[in-house]
Amino acid sequence: MSDTPDSAVRTYTEHHRAAFLADLAEWLRIPSVSAQPEHAADVRHSAEWLAAKLKETGFPVSEVWETPGAPAVFAEWPAADPAAPTVLVYGHHDVQPAAREDGWHTDPFEPRIIDGRLHARGAADDKGQVFFHTLGVRAHLAATGRTAPAVHLKLLIEGEEESGSPHFRALAEARADRLATDVVVVSDTGMWSETTPTVCTGMRGLADCEIELHGPDQDIHSGSFGGAVPNPATVAARLVAGLHDDAERVTIPGFYDGVTPLTDAERELFAELPFDEAEWLRTAKSHGTLGESGYSTLERIWARPTAEVNGIGGGYQGPGGKTIIPASAMVKLSFRLVAGQDPDAIEVAVSRWIAERVPAGIRYNLTFGASTRPCLTPLDHPALRSVVRAMSRAFDGAKIRFTREGGSGPAADLQDVLGAPVLFLGISVPSDGWHAPDEKVEVDLLLKGVETAAHLWEDLATTLSRSADLPTR
Amino acid sequence: MSDTPDSAVRTYTEHHRAAFLADLAEWLRIPSVSAQPEHAADVRHSAEWLAAKLKETGFPVSEVWETPGAPAVFAEWPAADPAAPTVLVYGHHDVQPAAREDGWHTDPFEPRIIDGRLHARGAADDKGQVFFHTLGVRAHLAATGRTAPAVHLKLLIEGEEESGSPHFRALAEARADRLATDVVVVSDTGMWSETTPTVCTGMRGLADCEIELHGPDQDIHSGSFGGAVPNPATVAARLVAGLHDDAERVTIPGFYDGVTPLTDAERELFAELPFDEAEWLRTAKSHGTLGESGYSTLERIWARPTAEVNGIGGGYQGPGGKTIIPASAMVKLSFRLVAGQDPDAIEVAVSRWIAERVPAGIRYNLTFGASTRPCLTPLDHPALRSVVRAMSRAFDGAKIRFTREGGSGPAADLQDVLGAPVLFLGISVPSDGWHAPDEKVEVDLLLKGVETAAHLWEDLATTLSRSADLPTR
Repeated sequence: MSDTPDSAVRTYTEHHRAAFLADLAEWLRIPSVSAQPEHAADVRHSAEWLAAKLKETGFPVSEVWETPGAPAVFAEWPAADPAAPTVLVYGHHDVQPAAREDGWHTDPFEPRIIDGRLHARGAADDKGQVFFHTLGVRAHLAATGRTAPAVHLKLLIEGEEESGSPHFRALAEARADRLATDVVVVSDTGMWSETTPTVCTGMRGLADCEIELHGPDQDIHSGSFGGAVPNPATVAARLVAGLHDDAERVTIPGFYDGVTPLTDAERELFAELPFDEAEWLRTAKSHGTLGESGYSTLERIWARPTAEVNGIGGGYQGPGGKTIIPASAMVKLSFRLVAGQDPDAIEVAVSRWIAERVPAGIRYNLTFGASTRPCLTPLDHPALRSVVRAMSRAFDGAKIRFTREGGSGPAADLQDVLGAPVLFLGISVPSDGWHAPDEKVEVDLLLKGVETAAHLWEDLATTLSRSADLPTR
Repeated sequence: MSDTPDSAVRTYTEHHRAAFLADLAEWLRIPSVSAQPEHAADVRHSAEWLAAKLKETGFPVSEVWETPGAPAVFAEWPAADPAAPTVLVYGHHDVQPAAREDGWHTDPFEPRIIDGRLHARGAADDKGQVFFHTLGVRAHLAATGRTAPAVHLKLLIEGEEESGSPHFRALAEARADRLATDVVVVSDTGMWSETTPTVCTGMRGLADCEIELHGPDQDIHSGSFGGAVPNPATVAARLVAGLHDDAERVTIPGFYDGVTPLTDAERELFAELPFDEAEWLRTAKSHGTLGESGYSTLERIWARPTAEVNGIGGGYQGPGGKTIIPASAMVKLSFRLVAGQDPDAIEVAVSRWIAERVPAGIRYNLTFGASTRPCLTPLDHPALRSVVRAMSRAFDGAKIRFTREGGSGPAADLQDVLGAPVLFLGISVPSDGWHAPDEKVEVDLLLKGVETAAHLWEDLATTLSRSADLPTR
């Protein structure tokens, strides 16, 4: 495998821990919320900050790449050996919206370390997990005595992931030459838990839409007119309620077309994990499970597609009553997709389904966000073994198991465009609260991420050079 | 009938028109929104303003009556003849919420007369229709040369009608002695149209509730957890969608229990009205009809009970997307009730129905507002003929037809508590926009209201003295 002494990586990491955390905190202070136009300048600032930091880290190439939306960052550090394999690390520098009044106990953009946890929007999703690569590559060099990484190392850190990566695929296509790689390493997922380190092998895709429904030209009196005209809030509710049947299966015709079924082997791997429903519910901050009949909770979140309402609104939502038929209502829906589903086909199916269900007298406007493809790492890929070994070393020899992620990322676009397999390397844990108030990252795990990245490049360089024909999918 | 010369009433009304409108405008400037706690002082101010104005009008007794909520106003002007019958006028001085940003073209609390229409929140519902009684009784006295009305005239103007009159029944019960009356005249309804004057013979009742649904303790990631836990916004939508079957009948078991069916005679009276669906839709500012199978639009809004969603909300409603399962959602429902339905029984049925439909893992909180009973005037009541005659004189001999109102008022409580039949006298028209932005009243019709009130007391005094046994129901 590799000659890198594990203790050298750990010593280097510990030595630079304080500066690393201080730098990360500086980045987290930039509210790079890509979904909110008022934060456009912050997203740009975040990109510029990162590009400068990567240059300081030692990447000879570090550039801000423009898109029609928010900018991405690209950095490149060639190996000394021109024949070394190439690795492209993917992450994102934009974050979900966050406001103190959503229930945060600290300012979401003023990072605080409390009991070994770094709290801030983006701490885990995804700035923390991008940032461990900066110290990771330095530790790799320090421990091996190299002046350049063992692989041609490239980073592509996008700025629109939390907005559905609307320009990512086009960017990847336009820059395919510079992005060319043997494997993609996605650092935007997590592990099973603090004590069960795992490697993710797949992510769900995503399609989402907003439906605006317009009924009366203004709010009208529910006594004078109620019972005789269509109510757009009722129509909104009927759309949402109609999404599922009694078995919690999605009813939209064609929705399940092409879905890759779970194999028995995969179901067994899932079942090996120390799943505890009560603990999982605590992480989900939920008080009950509900999902598609015939599937376990892990199967439901990792391997089955969903339809979910993210927001619904219409009429009077203030205190007291207001006896109106509202003029309008809105629904935000998102669909998680699994391998074999095509987001474009889903959009067509959803559009047709909605058109059939909106009654006369209600006008509607349907808009889709950018979609994200599902992806799945081949379980037999040799590079996956490298990730497992690197992680096991960082975790003091622990057995590394396999998971999937219910969330979505544009990794599948890189797979498609670059023809390279996708691997996942993430150290976030379910309690990190992605997209939620009080998002945090465990500082100890963040440093395990640094160590894993530090071990990985040497191992991958060896493994990939040995693999003549790499399977791709 | 009466010796009141119609021209004297009209001359008096015209002469005092400007001062009447100026006074009304002063009252409309007080934002007496009973549903919003921040307007509690305004509701009180409105009551005090009215009590003073009624004293100025000549009522020897004019008092603010306290309730556990907003105050009512009571005024009394005894007839010279102790044997004269008693009439109690009902109205309300509180108004619906209104804000410029809801779509008003003028400030809702800064009355403006534009093209013969007085625009303000409360212009028609109900301050304008209460206020025509002030000039009405003066015109009655002036035209007949009386110094006191022909009937013992009482006014009860409550302050919580737009909040469901939560303390009204208790107030009526506590003050039953002072409210004792032969008939109740409710001035809180409307007419068919500017050119088809009508008398209303019934109002629907109202029960309403708010359901708060709590799922995860905070918003959670729809990728990480979606498909495996119950989503409170989905549950909210399913409740709303489950309210009706495919025939738009309410599905709640027991909901239709006791409903008084429409007679053929009533259906014929409705069918006589010059109903034009396109015109009605314009008034409803709506673009299609939808309602219970087997009933016409008028039957649906006047004589059939409904379930309507007034507000729904949950999750992310801002710009862009946010892939969450929301922590909570809410629904505001209201039910219009017709003769034969008991609001208490409806609340029990609704509570039971909701309890059966909220899944494990979702906690909920259900609160009902104060309910209002439905009421119906006997078509054969002699006092109803008095109203028809008085109105016909104000409308230059026009034929007066009969309608009902889809809206609700606490008139049925007065009927129950005081054992007196309820009559309706209103001049508002459907285009007045009750509860909506740009509420207005037609100034010409407001003055017809003054004239009708001026003609009514003499006629009622004669009619009621002649009627030995008045039917009540």
